[in-house]
Amino acid sequence: MTEMRSEINEQPDVVARLASANLDAYRDVCAAARAAGAAFVLYVARGTSDNAAVYGQYLATASAGLPSGLALPSAVTLYRKPIDFRRCLVIGISQSGETPDVAESLAYARTQGAFTVGITNNAASPLAEAAERVLRTEAGVERSVAATKTYTSQLAVLALLWATWNEDEATVRALREDVPGAMRAGLAAEAQIVALAEELKGASGLLVVARGYNLATSLEAALKMQETAAILALPYSAADLMHGPIAMLHPGSPVLCFAPSGPAQASVLQVSALLRERGARVILISPAGSTPALPPRSESARHPEGALDWIRLEDTPESLSPLVAIIPAQLLACHLALAQGRDPDHPFGLSKVTHTR
Amino acid sequence: MTEMRSEINEQPDVVARLASANLDAYRDVCAAARAAGAAFVLYVARGTSDNAAVYGQYLATASAGLPSGLALPSAVTLYRKPIDFRRCLVIGISQSGETPDVAESLAYARTQGAFTVGITNNAASPLAEAAERVLRTEAGVERSVAATKTYTSQLAVLALLWATWNEDEATVRALREDVPGAMRAGLAAEAQIVALAEELKGASGLLVVARGYNLATSLEAALKMQETAAILALPYSAADLMHGPIAMLHPGSPVLCFAPSGPAQASVLQVSALLRERGARVILISPAGSTPALPPRSESARHPEGALDWIRLEDTPESLSPLVAIIPAQLLACHLALAQGRDPDHPFGLSKVTHTR
Repeated sequence: MTEMRSEINEQPDVVARLASANLDAYRDVCAAARAAGAAFVLYVARGTSDNAAVYGQYLATASAGLPSGLALPSAVTLYRKPIDFRRCLVIGISQSGETPDVAESLAYARTQGAFTVGITNNAASPLAEAAERVLRTEAGVERSVAATKTYTSQLAVLALLWATWNEDEATVRALREDVPGAMRAGLAAEAQIVALAEELKGASGLLVVARGYNLATSLEAALKMQETAAILALPYSAADLMHGPIAMLHPGSPVLCFAPSGPAQASVLQVSALLRERGARVILISPAGSTPALPPRSESARHPEGALDWIRLEDTPESLSPLVAIIPAQLLACHLALAQGRDPDHPFGLSKVTHTR
Repeated sequence: MTEMRSEINEQPDVVARLASANLDAYRDVCAAARAAGAAFVLYVARGTSDNAAVYGQYLATASAGLPSGLALPSAVTLYRKPIDFRRCLVIGISQSGETPDVAESLAYARTQGAFTVGITNNAASPLAEAAERVLRTEAGVERSVAATKTYTSQLAVLALLWATWNEDEATVRALREDVPGAMRAGLAAEAQIVALAEELKGASGLLVVARGYNLATSLEAALKMQETAAILALPYSAADLMHGPIAMLHPGSPVLCFAPSGPAQASVLQVSALLRERGARVILISPAGSTPALPPRSESARHPEGALDWIRLEDTPESLSPLVAIIPAQLLACHLALAQGRDPDHPFGLSKVTHTR
């Protein structure tokens, strides 16, 4: 088994462990950030961690009611103008903790009055050094270049952080009791995904659509396809897709549509129906309980152009569904690479730690 | 001449007119936003306007020293939790002013304490109604579905807004006196771009790389290629490209690299040299005064795999260069569509105003 595949398997246990641990560190972060007057939230990250930050942005704004954004590390590190970070909670996210412009931006924001938190898998890293508080992702060493378990562990840490902020015990309980099982159920769909990878292995492009909390899922799914299977995968919010990119569709173009239950679902299902009408090959990733806009064909059926595949998810609250919905995409990226004869653990030209300044 | 091509031509005059007008409306916005205690800037936009907002984010943070972000319209409109927008300057951007989730998010932010500004080409639109102050892009009616002159007019309004905030008269002068001429010089490179479009018309994918202020240029260039020429174009910051997507490169893959003079240039040139070593077909868009990391071949030479094309820009301050650097990309998108036998004014399946909620 490849490292990537084996790390995909570890995810339910990593999340269960994080959600079962003592949450004192989270309570301490929330109390200290409140004491510092935090009114705005900025995330600083790159690559996969930046996708986790998009999830964090929805949590901060849609669940905790704080205006939030993704900081542009180069706006800090390239231009070096003084920036007034008072009343900002700045959260740096990096698996290795070693991406220099992320650690530098966080360190700079701290000198300018921000309250800073680092989320990292490496508590001895420059990011951890730079931040006032550290939340560890505790995912164990990640050997595959393509991040999987560190991504979902970042999502879990973000979910725990904002559930603690909101004193939302139901979410902590769901993360501990329901999400790991739903992730395991996702892993059990592997046979369907292996067959799908065999059919899609020659695709040059792929659109990936989601909305709301799962915008992060579309970004991360596309990045996994790009780096692991060398497919030009474009992530879109269901809203933005209608602003131009839909013009790219050719008959039979594959489109992954993520539609977990919740307020974002209707608009993804609407777009997926529209895409199917236009001849796209829609692969819908949604819970068994939801009704897709168009009925799926049987799993074993052949897939003529425009056919709809349906990868079923176990239902979870929408705000936690990104931890579950990414699993089939990780499996698909891994199996696409294998079907193409690539080594998913060693994508051409990538290294595990990226030293952008 | 197509509408798109003719609107591309109008841009220098639109920008010159905006920069020559009385700036009282900008002074009023800045004074009122300061009086409201604005400490944090959020942009709300979709599609092309969202790309302009990325430029606005660099201006707010790197030139005016205010933490800033792009709001997620759906975090407001889908989830409907109370959000505390006090001390936020929320800037909505929409050509038509009619994208409902942009106008709704702005209206909601205003009720929650934000100081709100609308940037639009339609002063009688819902966005203009919702905002406390309106800055008009004055680009005239845009007939092509692909936005060109409204994009650069949005950039010009943002540049004027933040130059006014910073009391930076040199930037206003450069926008009025230097930028329109540099934009016209860009239009004069059309013959080179027509030849390039002929060579690239069969490409299925394209990477677009920039950094810093021109991150907006890479996003908008990619969107133009997607909607007008139906090419799977992926925009990347030079920093993020090294985090995974570089694995997608095949020998001969075309890559547009935007490298105007300034702090971001070195990292784009470094990435473009690396891409060229790996066999990419690099098309460098940079000023004549700058030295590319690898010498360009003569313009008229044939382009074997890995060759470097060089589209020269007139030099401008980096913070204004996005107005100039986008011109060759707009021309390329338009001529790619024509070379493919498409109508750039009517991309398949797109309408001018998008009604996402």
